[in-house]
Amino acid sequence: MQKPPISRYPAPGLEDAPQDVRERIEAVREKSGFVPNVFLALARRPEEFRAFFAYHDALMEKPGGLTKAEREMIVVATSGLNHCQYCVVAHGAILRIRAKNPLIADQVAVNPLKADLNARERAMLAFALKVAERSYAIDEEDFVALAPHAFSYEDIWDIAAIAALFAMSNRLANAFAIRPNEEFYLMGREPRR
Amino acid sequence: MQKPPISRYPAPGLEDAPQDVRERIEAVREKSGFVPNVFLALARRPEEFRAFFAYHDALMEKPGGLTKAEREMIVVATSGLNHCQYCVVAHGAILRIRAKNPLIADQVAVNPLKADLNARERAMLAFALKVAERSYAIDEEDFVALAPHAFSYEDIWDIAAIAALFAMSNRLANAFAIRPNEEFYLMGREPRR
Amino acid sequence: MQKPPISRYPAPGLEDAPQDVRERIEAVREKSGFVPNVFLALARRPEEFRAFFAYHDALMEKPGGLTKAEREMIVVATSGLNHCQYCVVAHGAILRIRAKNPLIADQVAVNPLKADLNARERAMLAFALKVAERSYAIDEEDFVALAPHAFSYEDIWDIAAIAALFAMSNRLANAFAIRPNEEFYLMGREPRR
Amino acid sequence: MQKPPISRYPAPGLEDAPQDVRERIEAVREKSGFVPNVFLALARRPEEFRAFFAYHDALMEKPGGLTKAEREMIVVATSGLNHCQYCVVAHGAILRIRAKNPLIADQVAVNPLKADLNARERAMLAFALKVAERSYAIDEEDFVALAPHAFSYEDIWDIAAIAALFAMSNRLANAFAIRPNEEFYLMGREPRR
Amino acid sequence: MQKPPISRYPAPGLEDAPQDVRERIEAVREKSGFVPNVFLALARRPEEFRAFFAYHDALMEKPGGLTKAEREMIVVATSGLNHCQYCVVAHGAILRIRAKNPLIADQVAVNPLKADLNARERAMLAFALKVAERSYAIDEEDFVALAPHAFSYEDIWDIAAIAALFAMSNRLANAFAIRPNEEFYLMGREPRR
Amino acid sequence: MQKPPISRYPAPGLEDAPQDVRERIEAVREKSGFVPNVFLALARRPEEFRAFFAYHDALMEKPGGLTKAEREMIVVATSGLNHCQYCVVAHGAILRIRAKNPLIADQVAVNPLKADLNARERAMLAFALKVAERSYAIDEEDFVALAPHAFSYEDIWDIAAIAALFAMSNRLANAFAIRPNEEFYLMGREPRR
Repeated sequence: MQKPPISRYPAPGLEDAPQDVRERIEAVREKSGFVPNVFLALARRPEEFRAFFAYHDALMEKPGGLTKAEREMIVVATSGLNHCQYCVVAHGAILRIRAKNPLIADQVAVNPLKADLNARERAMLAFALKVAERSYAIDEEDFVALAPHAFSYEDIWDIAAIAALFAMSNRLANAFAIRPNEEFYLMGREPRR
Repeated sequence: MQKPPISRYPAPGLEDAPQDVRERIEAVREKSGFVPNVFLALARRPEEFRAFFAYHDALMEKPGGLTKAEREMIVVATSGLNHCQYCVVAHGAILRIRAKNPLIADQVAVNPLKADLNARERAMLAFALKVAERSYAIDEEDFVALAPHAFSYEDIWDIAAIAALFAMSNRLANAFAIRPNEEFYLMGREPRR
Repeated sequence: MQKPPISRYPAPGLEDAPQDVRERIEAVREKSGFVPNVFLALARRPEEFRAFFAYHDALMEKPGGLTKAEREMIVVATSGLNHCQYCVVAHGAILRIRAKNPLIADQVAVNPLKADLNARERAMLAFALKVAERSYAIDEEDFVALAPHAFSYEDIWDIAAIAALFAMSNRLANAFAIRPNEEFYLMGREPRR
Repeated sequence: MQKPPISRYPAPGLEDAPQDVRERIEAVREKSGFVPNVFLALARRPEEFRAFFAYHDALMEKPGGLTKAEREMIVVATSGLNHCQYCVVAHGAILRIRAKNPLIADQVAVNPLKADLNARERAMLAFALKVAERSYAIDEEDFVALAPHAFSYEDIWDIAAIAALFAMSNRLANAFAIRPNEEFYLMGREPRR
Repeated sequence: MQKPPISRYPAPGLEDAPQDVRERIEAVREKSGFVPNVFLALARRPEEFRAFFAYHDALMEKPGGLTKAEREMIVVATSGLNHCQYCVVAHGAILRIRAKNPLIADQVAVNPLKADLNARERAMLAFALKVAERSYAIDEEDFVALAPHAFSYEDIWDIAAIAALFAMSNRLANAFAIRPNEEFYLMGREPRR
Repeated sequence: MQKPPISRYPAPGLEDAPQDVRERIEAVREKSGFVPNVFLALARRPEEFRAFFAYHDALMEKPGGLTKAEREMIVVATSGLNHCQYCVVAHGAILRIRAKNPLIADQVAVNPLKADLNARERAMLAFALKVAERSYAIDEEDFVALAPHAFSYEDIWDIAAIAALFAMSNRLANAFAIRPNEEFYLMGREPRR
């Protein structure tokens, strides 16, 4: 069986991409050793590429009250809900690395309710999953439920916004059939030492 | 009963917003006669504000195979599915104006299957709603079903991406309780002449 | 695009309707200035016409503990749940008028949880929506939850019965594709003074 | 364990009921040997009682293209969907008698897809269940699917209207906890001879 | 209309079955007066037959904290949820006999929430139905909720395991279209004396 | 954070288990290098242990038309649907090994519709997932849909029975919180050579 292409839509050659897009892609290649397919898949629409990664960086890379591992947990849990192969596999890898825990990504993807999480993480994911699944029902009580776990109002914005960003991202990856790079499957699986 | 504020999160005074954000807001005020609350609600996070509206403009304002009325139809149909008060009311107004049809927004919001739509519009919304609701099941057949209606592959990208963008937008507006401006409710309701 | 007919089934000429049906229709025309299409659509089955409006009047027009605006709220909320174009549009108009509130109908139709409602109205709609959606699970606790809001047992009967009547009505309007009159879309939208 | 009362709401003494209501109740007692509890439960609201049974008789007792057994099948199948104890048990009994089949009611209530039905009955129940569950999606194709089975347009109205009437009826019986008479459980269970 | 066969798969003649299978079948015929079709349907796979009934007996026939009527209640409630004709009809009969209650099986199958149950039975079925429907969400609170009703930890294992066994059994009976024997429909329906 | 125990129920010491149970456990330890926790968790109920593994072996280990990799695919896909951490992780490992494919288990667990499967595998999983999720609707057409893919009627029995067995197994593992051994997470992930 031949492998499917990286996406339903052909990726442009890098030489056809605008310079800033190309530079961003080269930077990620340098850092990771390979180019995650979502960069190539979106590069054919440079304006959307720029907006997507600007949004991504504003939520996932900035300083803030949520640890980077917590942010990735939100991504993996909501992407599991949405059955997004790309996001579960790629962000699962990042989560394993950021949490220094080789088991956590599979656990969160399959069933966040049975994963090895502390109370703060459970509350965070319950909120994020509600945003992902039934945001119309979010109300004051959901905010109150997060209070005992030392989340500030800005942190709660971050939780909601990350869940919302990946609501978009999951749908793009699913609709365009973006394929996770094989590298992701094995990253971060070595046991803790 | 006192009206709730424009969002669960306080909006910054415009004088506190970065200049580009302020200019964007002033431009929309000039054009529309008022500032839609989503601009104020997101202004407290300037980077997210910029990314959000850059994405929005890249999909909703650029030239392309979809008419602007068709794009707004996608927004209203998927926002109805997600029970997003802000997006149904605000984009319902824009849809009425762009489609020059005072009935269409309420019809599409309540039940896209019973709205006054032509076959192309029906096929477009069926695809958009599948992206919104079960994107994990999008497959080649869904693309094939759009072919008879003169959608190019780029048009289909646009349909999917608009549905995905508002998957995010609906969740933000719902989680942050962004309130539609009263002006939207009445816009575009005058009967056709 | 030509407008679809008022229903999937042809309406009889008024001259073919029995006298009492005709009189009822003329009375509503006199009062409203037009004949809502549901009257014409059901007139072809005079016995069902009589039973339907007798039930309607017994619940919607009689004196009782629920205000007329509250009754229309139940109709709009449950009809939104059932995606009934006719009932949302027609009763949305009546709700705007009875509540003297041009915003309330759209809010309740899109998402009752985010509408501008007081605690009594919220409790009432929560009960009505449970009757509409999962009546098999109604139990004593649901009755108890209404007690603090000054609903009598007779009022609760009314809430349940209105939700049940429109469970029927929504299904008839959906199955027969009864089209709301254009007049309804604009009624009651002028801002409060 | 003491038996619960016939309904959450107390039934009036027959002597307190208006004469026409009392006469209807006495007539059914004469015919059946007992008074089905729905008559007693609704008698406390005489106008609703009259409208309910007028609607019921207009659909269930009148001449028409559907056999009486077919009409009861619709009731049992949709009431099973809605988990309505009263309607499944009471109309299950009537279905067994009208269909002269002691097995059919339990089969239809548990799983209409696996019941001993002919193709016409299957098509009829598929339509009725769609009206009961997702009437918003009923479209021309659903009407077309019934054509090969010798249903006239008037017959289809009857199918839809019966499903709609019991959408109401199920919700009333569930919300008011109307209890089926014990007599119903055993009626019509003697094997065919 | 000819009756469908006992299953989509042909049952072997008893003379073709291994001796232990044949003896088990003869024993049940002796005890019940007929051979329930599930025995014949599974006999074509002797190893699965043995494993199935070994599991069944280990949970349904052994001594333990749950009464036999309680165990059958779990079967009927979860089989109702799964729309399994065979299990609802066959185990409904056994439940009527074990509970000495001719009404209970139909009540539990149609709507466990409205059946004549005591508090212990309600709590037991709530747990069993959660195992049947959303076992991924079972947590410590579900165990705690059973404590006031005198269920030991071993009893709770039994409740869960019975619900799980019939999750399998329902799927087998549904997929293979195993038909309940007519005898079951009438068993245990005579009123209590 | 301390690791949770292997199950909500304490596992017996092996010395307390009956000899046949102990021997089975020792055999699996010899073969795999460790004892999968499901063996320990079920050992406290020896009769259920025996029945469970007898059923398992009869379907998963016997000769037949389905390859062993295909059988594990059914397990992983249906266990993903049921959010069963134990079965997805443990059988995901076995699937990787049997299919000699380090990617397939994660793909099938997250979204079988987007996994690298051939047409036969897709048809098989569509059937298995329907058995897992809505077995009440399995009908002749589902059998017909498998015919072009060279599945015999015995093979289809196997597909259905494996899906049914893991419907049980998933519910046991979820209800009893059986924890997958850490060894499973990494097994079979080395790339093909």
